[in-house]
Amino acid sequence: MIKVGIVGGTGYTGVELLRLLSRHPDVELKAVTSRKEAGMKVSEMFPSLRGHVEIAFSSPEDAKLTECDVVFFATPHGVAMAQARELLDAGVKVIDLAADFRLKDPVEFEKWYAMAHSCTDLLAEAVYGLPEVNRAAIQNARLIGMAGCYPTSVQLGLLPLIENGLQLIETSGIIADCKSGVSGAGRKAEVGTLFAESSDNFKAYAVKGHRHSPEIMQGLSAIHGAPVELTFVPHLTPMIRGIHSTIYARLTDAGKAADVQKLFEDRFAAEPFVDVMPAGSCPETRSVRGSNTARIAVHRPGNGDLLVILVVEDNLVKGASGQSVQVMNLMFGLPEQHGLDVVPLLP
Amino acid sequence: MIKVGIVGGTGYTGVELLRLLSRHPDVELKAVTSRKEAGMKVSEMFPSLRGHVEIAFSSPEDAKLTECDVVFFATPHGVAMAQARELLDAGVKVIDLAADFRLKDPVEFEKWYAMAHSCTDLLAEAVYGLPEVNRAAIQNARLIGMAGCYPTSVQLGLLPLIENGLQLIETSGIIADCKSGVSGAGRKAEVGTLFAESSDNFKAYAVKGHRHSPEIMQGLSAIHGAPVELTFVPHLTPMIRGIHSTIYARLTDAGKAADVQKLFEDRFAAEPFVDVMPAGSCPETRSVRGSNTARIAVHRPGNGDLLVILVVEDNLVKGASGQSVQVMNLMFGLPEQHGLDVVPLLP
Amino acid sequence: MIKVGIVGGTGYTGVELLRLLSRHPDVELKAVTSRKEAGMKVSEMFPSLRGHVEIAFSSPEDAKLTECDVVFFATPHGVAMAQARELLDAGVKVIDLAADFRLKDPVEFEKWYAMAHSCTDLLAEAVYGLPEVNRAAIQNARLIGMAGCYPTSVQLGLLPLIENGLQLIETSGIIADCKSGVSGAGRKAEVGTLFAESSDNFKAYAVKGHRHSPEIMQGLSAIHGAPVELTFVPHLTPMIRGIHSTIYARLTDAGKAADVQKLFEDRFAAEPFVDVMPAGSCPETRSVRGSNTARIAVHRPGNGDLLVILVVEDNLVKGASGQSVQVMNLMFGLPEQHGLDVVPLLP
Amino acid sequence: MIKVGIVGGTGYTGVELLRLLSRHPDVELKAVTSRKEAGMKVSEMFPSLRGHVEIAFSSPEDAKLTECDVVFFATPHGVAMAQARELLDAGVKVIDLAADFRLKDPVEFEKWYAMAHSCTDLLAEAVYGLPEVNRAAIQNARLIGMAGCYPTSVQLGLLPLIENGLQLIETSGIIADCKSGVSGAGRKAEVGTLFAESSDNFKAYAVKGHRHSPEIMQGLSAIHGAPVELTFVPHLTPMIRGIHSTIYARLTDAGKAADVQKLFEDRFAAEPFVDVMPAGSCPETRSVRGSNTARIAVHRPGNGDLLVILVVEDNLVKGASGQSVQVMNLMFGLPEQHGLDVVPLLP
Repeated sequence: MIKVGIVGGTGYTGVELLRLLSRHPDVELKAVTSRKEAGMKVSEMFPSLRGHVEIAFSSPEDAKLTECDVVFFATPHGVAMAQARELLDAGVKVIDLAADFRLKDPVEFEKWYAMAHSCTDLLAEAVYGLPEVNRAAIQNARLIGMAGCYPTSVQLGLLPLIENGLQLIETSGIIADCKSGVSGAGRKAEVGTLFAESSDNFKAYAVKGHRHSPEIMQGLSAIHGAPVELTFVPHLTPMIRGIHSTIYARLTDAGKAADVQKLFEDRFAAEPFVDVMPAGSCPETRSVRGSNTARIAVHRPGNGDLLVILVVEDNLVKGASGQSVQVMNLMFGLPEQHGLDVVPLLP
Repeated sequence: MIKVGIVGGTGYTGVELLRLLSRHPDVELKAVTSRKEAGMKVSEMFPSLRGHVEIAFSSPEDAKLTECDVVFFATPHGVAMAQARELLDAGVKVIDLAADFRLKDPVEFEKWYAMAHSCTDLLAEAVYGLPEVNRAAIQNARLIGMAGCYPTSVQLGLLPLIENGLQLIETSGIIADCKSGVSGAGRKAEVGTLFAESSDNFKAYAVKGHRHSPEIMQGLSAIHGAPVELTFVPHLTPMIRGIHSTIYARLTDAGKAADVQKLFEDRFAAEPFVDVMPAGSCPETRSVRGSNTARIAVHRPGNGDLLVILVVEDNLVKGASGQSVQVMNLMFGLPEQHGLDVVPLLP
Repeated sequence: MIKVGIVGGTGYTGVELLRLLSRHPDVELKAVTSRKEAGMKVSEMFPSLRGHVEIAFSSPEDAKLTECDVVFFATPHGVAMAQARELLDAGVKVIDLAADFRLKDPVEFEKWYAMAHSCTDLLAEAVYGLPEVNRAAIQNARLIGMAGCYPTSVQLGLLPLIENGLQLIETSGIIADCKSGVSGAGRKAEVGTLFAESSDNFKAYAVKGHRHSPEIMQGLSAIHGAPVELTFVPHLTPMIRGIHSTIYARLTDAGKAADVQKLFEDRFAAEPFVDVMPAGSCPETRSVRGSNTARIAVHRPGNGDLLVILVVEDNLVKGASGQSVQVMNLMFGLPEQHGLDVVPLLP
Repeated sequence: MIKVGIVGGTGYTGVELLRLLSRHPDVELKAVTSRKEAGMKVSEMFPSLRGHVEIAFSSPEDAKLTECDVVFFATPHGVAMAQARELLDAGVKVIDLAADFRLKDPVEFEKWYAMAHSCTDLLAEAVYGLPEVNRAAIQNARLIGMAGCYPTSVQLGLLPLIENGLQLIETSGIIADCKSGVSGAGRKAEVGTLFAESSDNFKAYAVKGHRHSPEIMQGLSAIHGAPVELTFVPHLTPMIRGIHSTIYARLTDAGKAADVQKLFEDRFAAEPFVDVMPAGSCPETRSVRGSNTARIAVHRPGNGDLLVILVVEDNLVKGASGQSVQVMNLMFGLPEQHGLDVVPLLP
């Protein structure tokens, strides 16, 4: 059994990790930390876990995280980079669900997250946690910076078109018009995500620039092996879970000649958590609610040169906690689906 | 034109007052205070008011409230009682939408609101702002403690059965099972009313005892002229606006002999904001969305001795701001409907 | 492996059965019928099942249901009673999720469901599918009429207080004020349950009388061994899943003397799917979303003689499909939790 | 007083017309037709109109529509074109909220609406009901084909950039990623728009081609005086009302040199129902809920060559019924705001 610790168990990625890990056949949950709630049973805060998770929150001091095999950080940005070295030095693998180890350039990190990076050597070592792109590297990593929720969906949607220098679309001028459920904003008390503010309402936000924009472009450029340029516009939609990315890209002549549907089907045929829908489909976010699957459909309206790619995922699962369990499975040589074999909840 | 000031314009009762007063034909809006947002245009915080409300928030010091004819307090509990005397002394009428002047007994007030009452003489003078019960007293008042949202619905639903010593129902053992939309919790940043917490969810709260319980019993007892005892259980329902009260009362022999439907219709025939639905109806909260109307239906399942009274209102209008405008109209001798002639928004 | 057939797989109880049975370790899904959709892959209609359910809908004629070990009817009322005999005669166990085998009195059935009962002998044989009450009888049954969604919650909430002649509450005058999510109305195209009609809205319905009322009273009377009388008022609340029942009962002197919290805890201690919450709790419907658990809390406001019992369940799981899988497990001697070990989805 | 008839009063555009016209100072409501509901009081179907609309539905035969000054068609496509000639011949002005008089080319109409056009001469005469573009023509028209909901938002968002041959953006390759609330699908009983299907869910639809696509391109081309080409992708979002259009266009060199914010502000300064937000804003759909205002914000991320235009409107008001009242006001020489001076409902 893998001994698992979770730092920061009171947010949505934390409770989602607990939901998944509590049923994972190879995992023993050793500690869930929360300085503020230390001593409170986890299931008192989240009654959905009654009968499934019996432990209480620990203070970070009492948690004995160095005795774990792996520690997940389901924390605000900045926490993991302060604690990772001690854990790694003790032989513990580290999976950060926040952004500390996503952006490879510390200058970019500081620009977007308003804090200096405190361990740039670890940043250089960290592997980007997107299994469909980095499976081998993940298997050998001891430190993972998990892909963000929006970036996961956008990168999966473009991957088959640009990987390894492929030029099926123009790699500048791409547009990602993304819509997220409100849980993406986290479990912080804020006016803007109150029910009475965000229900029965729709808006764009961060049009000027969003932290996930550099992450997406870094990821796509790494996939392509050359710069990829994209405009990313996120929107808030009144649902709890789910991201729907509508991606617009111009086909090159090579792209126009290609069978894009088949390209996607072939590329993801062996992927356990990417489902390419039949031609003409429009995937719904609810079709992946609670599961680690991303579903993709590809359209070419009017048979023109514009490709429209639709990607749905559960932002808390494939966009965060589920994907981090998938990554853990890879790091420990387990079957990739362990703990993730959940049927989506519909309706 | 009546010169109006609003203390505390950043919450839901504040913005709702602004929506209604901005169209009121007899009102001039002089000041909206917010210490925190002083200087910001009101319509910057609430873009729905662009083109309708042009003023900015003032600090309390700059607001010159003593030059107003009437000041509304759309503030947390405790603010109005600290400022009412100065305004009254300056000849300004005061309408408090919070609870400072609701409970007549200062001991009860302190018990439920965890603060001592600072002006018990004014408390004694204050009139309870429920026009269907207290119209004449309101017309002559200079200080009003507006009825709460739940209490308005429950009192209207029981009024015809018990007023003036009427004994059509047993006046103990009444049950009010009430359901409120989330805006009833206000515009405070709190985890429990986040979209991701309160959407797609239903729960009871404060079953042990809720502040509106003593207010309802005080009101019903005043209406009846003798003690009335009731159990009140509030629930949170995933909608923005609306209260639905389901009230259960045992008919006395006199009640069983009465034509209760006709009793309700007659009692409210002249009331501009109470609509008795045809027999057999089930009113929907959306049928009053945005309007100052309460709709009531009366049922007697199986022709037994249990009366089931259904009352719907918009908690922010008839349950708060709209009713306070109705009260203002009465205090200034205006037609009761001025500023309140809004058709509910359906769908 | 148990060979399972499902009649009527296109509604919500059908898709929910498929979600649960597709992960059930002892079940082989043989056929899902739909006359209208015969030939269509089940996962084409419900993309959430892609990768989990591979079969297509069959016409009833092609389904070879008599070769199954058990057949679930997830159909409108009236279908199961037309087909049950042939299946039973072939040695197939039958579990009806509709109402054909709930009401023991055919006259009552005809009154509430507007059709004559076509096999009253089977009705007499049928066991009422509520495991916490009828476990032994279910284990030996070949025909089950599953408990309805509201009736499950209300009976579980009152069970410890009245079973076997216990007189801890007055058994007349009980009130069940119940609130259901919209999925309870099924997957029929109807104006009243459109999003634009039922979102941001709350209403009571069927106050005059609801089909579940006689079922609840029949069940409670059987539990008690004497007549129990209750008023049941259902409400529609804007959420997909979940029932919240708020039950009001008067304590007898014996009840006032009892430790009701302990009574509930003891009664349900061994029940795998009933969770008694700590004293003072208010269970939320989302705490059981997607799971077969019912959670119960008991309150006695002001230490008076009124008991307030709060029960939450997922109407599609414990209120329908999940409970029918629990019943199937009992009928086939399997561990009761098989296929039902799902952690609720929160948020 | 203008005598008004409404054909088809049972859908959402019908009830919305009734909400607005019931408060219109210059309108007398003569008839609302519904063959199916003839004789039923309008307020019985829509209790929100109790006290505001007193008439009953009439059969088309009894409605005496030829005695009206103007008749609105709030009907399915195909109804207006069958009845318009008789009304026009009787001197009645006709405003069609459906699509019968939108597309100028009868071949296009037949292609997208699957019916032949029955009065192509009237089609040639009909004026497209988008006041910001066609005010003068509307003032002199007797037959209006109202702009669709999506087309209104997209055309307003692009108008200042392309009108009269202006070349501030490239007029091919424009992308309109639009999101609509569920009321846009109408008040028909359909599975796809049930609460339990469309709540907590997000999806694109009609990506292959939507009826509003040719309408938008026809409108933009007319505005520009030359062909404009656009890809339109609609999405369904779980809210009742509101459209949010996110429009992407490439700036030309002239466009890059222009002050686009000022251009928009100047263009719409005199428009009573178009509000250009301050630079950097992200308009929310709720900021126009229930009102006839469209709000627009213009962004140029990273000061690049991509312009992102955000437009919000209430699909039932500016996108349908409100705009048709605005058009009626123009046709009868009334102040454009009459009957439309509603403050949006927020929250």
